[in-house]
Amino acid sequence: MSFSPSTPAALPPEGEPGRVFIGDVTTEAGAVIPDVTVEFERWGRLNDDCSNVILLEHALTGDAHASGPSDEYHPTAGWWNGMIGSARALDTDEYCIICTNVIGGCRGTTGPSSPHPDDGKPWGSRFPAISVRDTVTVEHLALQELGISRLQAVIGGSLGGARALEWSLMHPDFVGKALVMCVGARASAWQIGIQSAQIQFIESDPDWHGGDYYDRGVTPTRGLGFARRVAHLTYRGELEMDDRFGAAAQPGENPLGAMRTEDRFQVESYLDHQAKKLAQRFDAGSYVVLTDTLNRHNIGRDRGGLNEALHSSTVPTMIAGVDTDILYPFHQQEHLARNLGNCMGLEKIESAVGHDGFLTEFERVDSIVRNFLARDVS
Amino acid sequence: MSFSPSTPAALPPEGEPGRVFIGDVTTEAGAVIPDVTVEFERWGRLNDDCSNVILLEHALTGDAHASGPSDEYHPTAGWWNGMIGSARALDTDEYCIICTNVIGGCRGTTGPSSPHPDDGKPWGSRFPAISVRDTVTVEHLALQELGISRLQAVIGGSLGGARALEWSLMHPDFVGKALVMCVGARASAWQIGIQSAQIQFIESDPDWHGGDYYDRGVTPTRGLGFARRVAHLTYRGELEMDDRFGAAAQPGENPLGAMRTEDRFQVESYLDHQAKKLAQRFDAGSYVVLTDTLNRHNIGRDRGGLNEALHSSTVPTMIAGVDTDILYPFHQQEHLARNLGNCMGLEKIESAVGHDGFLTEFERVDSIVRNFLARDVS
Repeated sequence: MSFSPSTPAALPPEGEPGRVFIGDVTTEAGAVIPDVTVEFERWGRLNDDCSNVILLEHALTGDAHASGPSDEYHPTAGWWNGMIGSARALDTDEYCIICTNVIGGCRGTTGPSSPHPDDGKPWGSRFPAISVRDTVTVEHLALQELGISRLQAVIGGSLGGARALEWSLMHPDFVGKALVMCVGARASAWQIGIQSAQIQFIESDPDWHGGDYYDRGVTPTRGLGFARRVAHLTYRGELEMDDRFGAAAQPGENPLGAMRTEDRFQVESYLDHQAKKLAQRFDAGSYVVLTDTLNRHNIGRDRGGLNEALHSSTVPTMIAGVDTDILYPFHQQEHLARNLGNCMGLEKIESAVGHDGFLTEFERVDSIVRNFLARDVS
Repeated sequence: MSFSPSTPAALPPEGEPGRVFIGDVTTEAGAVIPDVTVEFERWGRLNDDCSNVILLEHALTGDAHASGPSDEYHPTAGWWNGMIGSARALDTDEYCIICTNVIGGCRGTTGPSSPHPDDGKPWGSRFPAISVRDTVTVEHLALQELGISRLQAVIGGSLGGARALEWSLMHPDFVGKALVMCVGARASAWQIGIQSAQIQFIESDPDWHGGDYYDRGVTPTRGLGFARRVAHLTYRGELEMDDRFGAAAQPGENPLGAMRTEDRFQVESYLDHQAKKLAQRFDAGSYVVLTDTLNRHNIGRDRGGLNEALHSSTVPTMIAGVDTDILYPFHQQEHLARNLGNCMGLEKIESAVGHDGFLTEFERVDSIVRNFLARDVS
């Protein structure tokens, strides 16, 4: 379902995809992306003065489908199912929840697999690099196009947390408050290292074709699978994984035989499954663009450094993190909380799950979101 | 320099490679490896009753060269330089230190790049899988061949720690005491996941040729490089890496440009360098065999489970680990110390360096080794 710029505030039915067209976008690094489309979903009624909006920011391979079942259009169930609805933490009786698909993605918003306006062929290698700030610029334009000029709150984890944090710094007058989860003030060297390795796996796949594989009938599935396996190991705590799989063999396979074979441990089968699932639902070009986006995350850039940027923040911001996160270790959230100009508090999620805890630890995150929204910050 | 089985206790000059021939070895899983050679180095004089030997166990890509400069024969300087010598922690005035190259390796001991006795061509895919117990079996035979029937101590970290631990369980009467560093009682699911991914990178390289690339004039350098980049990120603490590289660009390159290019962050250049260095000095076939060895590490196998195996241990064993190790997290060393039948104590190495701390935190490790050796356990 699409909406033209002439019908501001025309929202799609609850949980169905809508689109806004925001025209040309110039990136932080100076590239121009013409005719940008932004896909979004919404839950809850937009009130008359458009003042009850909460913006949800998804993570790397997420999309606008934060809530609802999987169906023909949605390859996955909502990534925050159970959080959104009447009397839920994100209460649709009170708020209008909007979740936009990030620019560079592959679920409706313009990205490398989208048709280029010049020739209708996929952007591919022509698609520019996207910074976290660019993702906010695009959302800011999209919300304005929808007639929304103020957010009650912005909420996100991981890449979504980086986006929420940049929202609070780029548009402090637009954002009532921010909940920033499982991220740091900038990409760390370790993150850049592991993320760049993933990009390299994809770009080294012979089926990548320099990013222009779309019309060749091939996809760099192997490279994307390599990336996902490694990424998944950074998303999941080793305690939780060991609890589930230990050193058990995959049923019917013997990874302890006299010769090395393709027989697997259970955890290998699990990672193979994760790799296969992602390749079925996610574009490798988007994976490269958005992984590079994570590498570029640095709120200190052109703001006098990390701590000066954090000190300058005026938006009431709550920080949350998981104690076993190895990708964005908890000390990064402590750093944010210690230095933010207007920090509402720091919530530690005790969980064996690691980074993905903001998606899986439902009861704890539910309570964090409720407390965050209930707090009077006026 | 080689030594025939007929000259037991004939040791090479200090710090020069020696070899022993131990004949056929049957692996834990039932494969037979004929005509096994074991390369070793030694420092300090073997006393008349061969009772002053300390066995050093190297890690995955280490070798017998624990001490000394790099030279024509040794691609790297000793991996524990400074620890071995007169009045050093491993005091050559008192002890005869022996370090053997592990079976499956590529620095003198029989491995996949060694000539197969049948045809003189590299073993390649014919080389069987090696368990940690197999590495101990081979060393046990090699030491006996040298006339040594008792060790003052066995010491190792990482794969070397796994080997030291198995020594204490397989041959308790042979081992005076054991210092086991930076390892757990078995491979965790997370370790198996990240290690299997590395194997997959190499085995998917078109230059791998099923493990039989040796005579084709190619080496699976790209796959080995992928493996090393990821492995290195598990060896190094993210605090230390961030301290060194942060989000800085490699001089002369701009990873923040408008389009994605091959311009790198400094940490990428560092990882590229690590990958290149390893490919120059280490055989991909050995990397696969020994990474699989790490996957097979499980002291509970056929011993009634982990804790029963640990409880049964009689060898006085000291455990050490690094607080920031993400590959073998410190709780794994706590688990060892808590359950070992005869634990001498648990040493926590506080370091930003992560897993590699047992190689880099010289003063702390020096003190641990001195205390370990000074303790009377008779």
